[in-house]
Amino acid sequence: MKDKVIIVGAGLVGSLLACYLGKRGLAIEVYEKRPDPRKGLRTQGRSINLALSNRGLRSLEEVGLGEKVREILIPMHGRMIHNEEGILDFQPYGRLGQYINSVSRANLNTMLLEKAEELGAKFIFEHSCTGINWQENVVTFDHQGKESRIGGALIVGTDGAFSSVRSELMKTDRFNYSQYYIEHGYKELTIPPNAEGGFMMEKNALHIWPRGNFMLIALPNPDASFTCTLFFPFEGPQSFAQLSSDEVVRKFFQNTFPDAWELIPDLVDQYNTNPTASLVTVRCYPWVKDRVVIMGDASHAIVPFYGQGMNSGFEDARVFNDLIDAHGTGWESILSKFQTIRKPDADAIAELAMKNFVEMRDQVADSRFILRKKIESELNQKFPEQWIPQYSMVTFHDEIRYSEALRLGKIQDAIMNEFLDQFSEKTWEEKDLEQIIAQYEIKKVSDH
Amino acid sequence: MKDKVIIVGAGLVGSLLACYLGKRGLAIEVYEKRPDPRKGLRTQGRSINLALSNRGLRSLEEVGLGEKVREILIPMHGRMIHNEEGILDFQPYGRLGQYINSVSRANLNTMLLEKAEELGAKFIFEHSCTGINWQENVVTFDHQGKESRIGGALIVGTDGAFSSVRSELMKTDRFNYSQYYIEHGYKELTIPPNAEGGFMMEKNALHIWPRGNFMLIALPNPDASFTCTLFFPFEGPQSFAQLSSDEVVRKFFQNTFPDAWELIPDLVDQYNTNPTASLVTVRCYPWVKDRVVIMGDASHAIVPFYGQGMNSGFEDARVFNDLIDAHGTGWESILSKFQTIRKPDADAIAELAMKNFVEMRDQVADSRFILRKKIESELNQKFPEQWIPQYSMVTFHDEIRYSEALRLGKIQDAIMNEFLDQFSEKTWEEKDLEQIIAQYEIKKVSDH
Repeated sequence: MKDKVIIVGAGLVGSLLACYLGKRGLAIEVYEKRPDPRKGLRTQGRSINLALSNRGLRSLEEVGLGEKVREILIPMHGRMIHNEEGILDFQPYGRLGQYINSVSRANLNTMLLEKAEELGAKFIFEHSCTGINWQENVVTFDHQGKESRIGGALIVGTDGAFSSVRSELMKTDRFNYSQYYIEHGYKELTIPPNAEGGFMMEKNALHIWPRGNFMLIALPNPDASFTCTLFFPFEGPQSFAQLSSDEVVRKFFQNTFPDAWELIPDLVDQYNTNPTASLVTVRCYPWVKDRVVIMGDASHAIVPFYGQGMNSGFEDARVFNDLIDAHGTGWESILSKFQTIRKPDADAIAELAMKNFVEMRDQVADSRFILRKKIESELNQKFPEQWIPQYSMVTFHDEIRYSEALRLGKIQDAIMNEFLDQFSEKTWEEKDLEQIIAQYEIKKVSDH
Repeated sequence: MKDKVIIVGAGLVGSLLACYLGKRGLAIEVYEKRPDPRKGLRTQGRSINLALSNRGLRSLEEVGLGEKVREILIPMHGRMIHNEEGILDFQPYGRLGQYINSVSRANLNTMLLEKAEELGAKFIFEHSCTGINWQENVVTFDHQGKESRIGGALIVGTDGAFSSVRSELMKTDRFNYSQYYIEHGYKELTIPPNAEGGFMMEKNALHIWPRGNFMLIALPNPDASFTCTLFFPFEGPQSFAQLSSDEVVRKFFQNTFPDAWELIPDLVDQYNTNPTASLVTVRCYPWVKDRVVIMGDASHAIVPFYGQGMNSGFEDARVFNDLIDAHGTGWESILSKFQTIRKPDADAIAELAMKNFVEMRDQVADSRFILRKKIESELNQKFPEQWIPQYSMVTFHDEIRYSEALRLGKIQDAIMNEFLDQFSEKTWEEKDLEQIIAQYEIKKVSDH
């Protein structure tokens, strides 16, 4: 079939895109190298749960999964900060009713797959992409040593941070590419439910143990467990390399995360069993060649510290769908528009995600940062249309582009730093806040 | 043989390294995917001639080729600037006796190959590297569909900007990598010798036609021809994309490079026949894994505008050899030292090479730039130990590291810009120069 759309990768973004295009009545085939996830084999080396926020939710609503997905979400209204003594401090993410959601990757993926199938998409598992013929617009796949060649009108690579479709683009001339690994790796650990099957910590929060250069976080799961993730340097004085014996691991957790330590009876076993994975940022351009395009992690893999990896991938699919709404399925023109519009936003969220690591592991425990959050929250209450904190723009305002949130956030930083240099807690007045807003309004325009 | 050194890539850097290691009596095998260059087949897509300067010459001297290579060099004492009217302006590169050299890539490569063979290295052609087994320290090669597995104590990848050895490193975890293509491509054209077999322009200069965003350059060849290279954007209002017919090509050269145009009777034919190639900067790290290391373009491909691509690769080999002098052939410790020492210099020359493009295509025609060169030349005459212009540090002072030349050059820029803002041509005095030197000496130290 000449008009067929071939999607390579049946993960979250690929399945969502299949829903969008399926709704349009297009013929869709989605090829995935892994087995059907409904067969229950958990894939190693990918996080168990994810933070879903407004950008992602908007896409899910658009493909008709709004209600259904809400049944499997656990709202997280703010950050629960755990200090070295196990003392807690709750920092709301935004205003009342603004929250992010913990969601199981596997459950969400299955929901999307089944919706896409319902909308007519065909899923073909255990097929690895091995090449692209640019002249013929054909993808070759390997299935248990047997090669097949599939041609279509449009080929979309949604095959993740280590994308095979992107590897084919790498072989072509003038493809700009970078992969950058941060010094930190991560390891997942599970806090089990209590004896009654309930949560052992506050359910509706994202828990953080900020420790300067590293941190532990925890997100709630539907079975009342928490998935903890230790983000920690690979090498150096405090690093995975130093945690070389059971005794050292035990001491480290006991001293560094005492309250978490108490909730994980088999911590050392988990530590030894679970893999230590690396964290990469991938940037590249162009995303498009002929009738082939890459989306999601395949074109812009980012570090997980803003909880926007999945959300930005979902937004890719939504923007692509909006372009078809506006311009029809003349693929070549759509593809070119897509990458031009979307690249600055992908770069922006990559930068924001790196920056948020420092905020999470260090600044959330800092008194100046906490004061700033308080002032910004007051500004946002009083001037909800004018002052939207950067975190809120990224997380709750899907009508604001990532690139715009990055730009405005830099202006906010400058204004807030100046203000904080002048005032200490509770010495500011109503008119100071008005001045801030006036200053912001001017800079918003003049900075362009 | 367990102690064998395997070099992948018999280009300039691989052959030089084979000389260095061959001199030490080590067993060397050099594998090359191309046929033996002595069989006379010219490889497409690589420049015909190169600029050899002090860093490169020093290495050639160390392996005993100093005298022999001088026989095939054409000294270039400065830049010959051609303006739009064909009027010439000669700008010396340094002091009397300081010059760079045009050399044929093919002749130099053959000379190095033969020297390495003389020193006991074995060359095996038409063998492409297809993989590395990290556990066993074995490289697999393909020769006409037949696979061979070669093990050794040390594996060196000197297989260029599109290195296969680097591709194997790319498959390992936590390998940082970037490839960045500039907007410009290049096309080579030949100015033939005159009827008497002589040079049609000044022989002992590097010719430049600076035209703002683009340029034409020419280097002399031993047969009295010149190889010209047009560096020109791929796309845009003035670009390769616009030169779409013979007539447009003809008009463009006639108007833009009138004196060059007159010297190339078959310009349009050459333009249509010769390929347009792209220009990439490759950065990566680590360069080392286990007993495998990459050198030269394989680890740091740079744009050609400082004439340091080959020179920096040769310096890699020299630094590696110095490390063996100092520490013996305990490869793992040598390799780790090599990449730690050499990476900042590779990054520095990559940055300098990009910066020099703007200088060559634009600034050389600028009066402020010309005045600065004049002042710097006077400074260098009067204070030869204290003020060495950045170009001279990079090109003539192989005892100064690239990273140091980059650092000092930035200080020189700041001092010169301040000075030029205050003085116009010929209004400065002896004591002003002394003040500059005093300021430089302070900043050299305080900047650290």
